[in-house]
Amino acid sequence: MTLSFDIAIIGATGSVGETLVQILDERDFPVGELHVLAGSESAGRTLSFKGRNLRVADAEAFDFSRVRLVFCAAHPDVTLSLIDKVRAAGCQVIDLSGALPATQAPRVISEVNAQILDGLVAPFQLSSPCSPAVAVAVVLAALREQVEVRRLSVTACLPVSSRGREGVSELARQTAELLNGRPLEPRLFEHQMAFNLLAQVDKPDEQGHGMLERRVGEELKQLMLLPDLQVSTSCLQVPVFFGDSISVALQAAGPVNLQAVLAQLASSSVLEYVEPGDFPSAVGDAVGQDIPYVGRVRGGVDDPTELNLWITSDNLRKGAALNAVQLAELLIKHYL
Amino acid sequence: MTLSFDIAIIGATGSVGETLVQILDERDFPVGELHVLAGSESAGRTLSFKGRNLRVADAEAFDFSRVRLVFCAAHPDVTLSLIDKVRAAGCQVIDLSGALPATQAPRVISEVNAQILDGLVAPFQLSSPCSPAVAVAVVLAALREQVEVRRLSVTACLPVSSRGREGVSELARQTAELLNGRPLEPRLFEHQMAFNLLAQVDKPDEQGHGMLERRVGEELKQLMLLPDLQVSTSCLQVPVFFGDSISVALQAAGPVNLQAVLAQLASSSVLEYVEPGDFPSAVGDAVGQDIPYVGRVRGGVDDPTELNLWITSDNLRKGAALNAVQLAELLIKHYL
Repeated sequence: MTLSFDIAIIGATGSVGETLVQILDERDFPVGELHVLAGSESAGRTLSFKGRNLRVADAEAFDFSRVRLVFCAAHPDVTLSLIDKVRAAGCQVIDLSGALPATQAPRVISEVNAQILDGLVAPFQLSSPCSPAVAVAVVLAALREQVEVRRLSVTACLPVSSRGREGVSELARQTAELLNGRPLEPRLFEHQMAFNLLAQVDKPDEQGHGMLERRVGEELKQLMLLPDLQVSTSCLQVPVFFGDSISVALQAAGPVNLQAVLAQLASSSVLEYVEPGDFPSAVGDAVGQDIPYVGRVRGGVDDPTELNLWITSDNLRKGAALNAVQLAELLIKHYL
Repeated sequence: MTLSFDIAIIGATGSVGETLVQILDERDFPVGELHVLAGSESAGRTLSFKGRNLRVADAEAFDFSRVRLVFCAAHPDVTLSLIDKVRAAGCQVIDLSGALPATQAPRVISEVNAQILDGLVAPFQLSSPCSPAVAVAVVLAALREQVEVRRLSVTACLPVSSRGREGVSELARQTAELLNGRPLEPRLFEHQMAFNLLAQVDKPDEQGHGMLERRVGEELKQLMLLPDLQVSTSCLQVPVFFGDSISVALQAAGPVNLQAVLAQLASSSVLEYVEPGDFPSAVGDAVGQDIPYVGRVRGGVDDPTELNLWITSDNLRKGAALNAVQLAELLIKHYL
């Protein structure tokens, strides 16, 4: 007899949701029934899973007592509108939307802070952090013995797929219009996205910080168990289809032993280290990969406590869907 | 009688050289004879200036005693191979190539450190700093009264025109190939440039720092008269044709008075301030402009001494040719 779990995915027709279905299909995850849910406008569409076609059902009308585990991969508002029904049904929850506060659903990455689950009781509610936080946390956690981080300056360059399928098609459309010399009227983005960089990815708050910029800092502190870490984050939207590209400048508590850092990165199994001379890029070394790539590892020019890193990572896989499935695997292995 | 100056431009057929000719044409600069020089392979081409066609001459064969002022806008190696002849002819020199050390040719921006000329004697040798250093220095100098900078983390996203005309045509070629579904063989750049970010713009040294990354730090210290400034620079090559985009996170000596910073930026005439909500971009607010644009001005989330800025600037105009012409104007006005 094989144990298996009935699962629902809210937001199954979005980029992250579809990648979740694909990763559950790829991996040896013991799925019983898989229910793919979305807004009523998508209900009736089908998604392929293990050779079958699954029909998309209306999330609003779904009876969550039919499943044990729910992935929330839609917009945060959708998570908030359904979470009470999901909880009332006693489901385990893995949130990818960022809607649930860390006090209710701690941010978890299996390679970074799996031990946080020891203090929780079932039914579990876990959050998969935002994609730049996942990539940076995996790398910094791998260097925990070598570098005691005090301060982080993160410049996260997000691909248009961070805005879903509409982002991808809008960049393609704009690029084709411009190459054909036709006038451009941006639709999805605030300014021309093709051949341009945009300095914010969401609406800034009163202090000027974007929601994702705040989230990166808060999640890194929680993941690294460093509440006093000082984080400065700038998120850019860049004309790249898939894959996060992240520039990190950090200050450590003392001088950085660069040789030890390089040796640790080269031997780590949770990331891929690219030696000096070459460097990873989103197109070449993020898309379709399950671990982040790290390169351009440099000490400070002026400050021996500084370390510079360049990280690329698949924003839909390790940055979202893969990490969420790994959290589900963690739950199943140890706690269910 | 009007005073006028005979001028030579070395590297006149490159992107920066052509922009120099264009800016000398646009502005009220008292040009007598203008000699446009380049390598022998470009000799015989013509450039338009004040309604005439100037014939490009071989720089190697040119008699520099025919001019009073020389702009060096070719590759650093070309500057080094010709500088002795230029000096022997007693010419004033404005170097845009970065070849001459700061001890021989101090970095100058008229809005930032024009006073440095008081200590020099003719014939003058000045350098126009690299484009990201110009943009950042103009903004930080405007904030000198409000912010005492201790530490700078600069992420400079350079357009493909920083690699000259070949960079521009290579990005266009790659983009068209990809949109047409044809296989891609990168020619000029190390990796695919279209729809991708590259984490270095030149060959890194033993410590992993690129030449331009070192130059940004060194030039900012010299321009700002802050030898103890700690600078961390990462230069990225991005799929943008023209215009630098620069993310800056700085630490000041004390808490930043954000209201005073915003008021100063809003009233400054050497830069254009973009209010929160919107932001400047390379395509919309750098290309063809004579001053840098600043937006996304934010304090730190965790640290009251922190300030974040986003700067866009025309890499060929203020970042190179315009700044060089402004240096020539400064020389003429005060010292010749």
